[in-house]
Amino acid sequence: MATSEASVTRIMVAVNESTIKGYPHASISSKGAFEWTLQKIVMSNTSGFKLLFLHVQVPDEDGFDDMDSIYASPEDFKSLKSRDRARGLRLLEFFVTRCHEIGVACEAWIKKGDPKEVICHEVKRIQPDLLVLGSRGLGPFRRVFVGTVSEFCVKHAECPVVTIKRRLDETPQDPVDD
Amino acid sequence: MATSEASVTRIMVAVNESTIKGYPHASISSKGAFEWTLQKIVMSNTSGFKLLFLHVQVPDEDGFDDMDSIYASPEDFKSLKSRDRARGLRLLEFFVTRCHEIGVACEAWIKKGDPKEVICHEVKRIQPDLLVLGSRGLGPFRRVFVGTVSEFCVKHAECPVVTIKRRLDETPQDPVDD
Repeated sequence: MATSEASVTRIMVAVNESTIKGYPHASISSKGAFEWTLQKIVMSNTSGFKLLFLHVQVPDEDGFDDMDSIYASPEDFKSLKSRDRARGLRLLEFFVTRCHEIGVACEAWIKKGDPKEVICHEVKRIQPDLLVLGSRGLGPFRRVFVGTVSEFCVKHAECPVVTIKRRLDETPQDPVDD
Repeated sequence: MATSEASVTRIMVAVNESTIKGYPHASISSKGAFEWTLQKIVMSNTSGFKLLFLHVQVPDEDGFDDMDSIYASPEDFKSLKSRDRARGLRLLEFFVTRCHEIGVACEAWIKKGDPKEVICHEVKRIQPDLLVLGSRGLGPFRRVFVGTVSEFCVKHAECPVVTIKRRLDETPQDPVDD
């Protein structure tokens, strides 16, 4: 089994929620990166790969926006944390369920922090063979402010990185996201 | 057969010669990109992939260096061109032979010009599913002058791009190259 395990290619896929629909909906770019991995790389060789889904939650500065009171008790904080966790898990469920259906081994976990820093840190810790990132394919103007996660990871992640840009014809008719 | 052809993933691998050993030796970074593709992506699924080897020859400004005369006739030019072509073909032979041994479909061809421009142009023309590039993993100083092909392609190629950096422990003891 050791030999067989060694020959499995471990692909980390960083996934996030829809910027418009929010949790538990996965962003179009995350789904695009995932589908690309399945269709173009894994194909019928389901036993040859293991997918590692990382979801990084960004600590929310105004996390109390939709809570009843701004005077938060320690209990409020606790429920906020567990709500965040539940949302993240439901997001990951989409990808894990799909893998189970297809028969591809996978793992999934949540971390908190700055996505680009956390992704590179997790790459260092987990040492995948490939990191797959979705990207909105922003224009040069918006990219300066927004599209830095994939560029940062391409430069700094200690493993090969592939960025799956959304094609123009994949822009959603319904403005659901990302 | 049309369906089967459509489900084949076409991976373009840009390859070049050793910077020190010269033709027909492939650069370590090219070989690294190729071996990574076979070991981590293709694996046993040899019928699922087609590899497309592109070798870009840079027009040599002082191409007459090792010719007998600087007064070159049209015949000299012609022999120079055919010699270049023969060298490029021998370089590609390394990759094509390996593919034949393993049983992976492949194509290989030569173009002349600025590698980064030609690679992006060929991606546009051929529309591969993935472009794999080797990289020497230069430090920030040398990268400004040298390591721009992969960075340019990551930004401009119209397909997903993965750059395979040479690991530190792959630096050759024998200073044979790239």
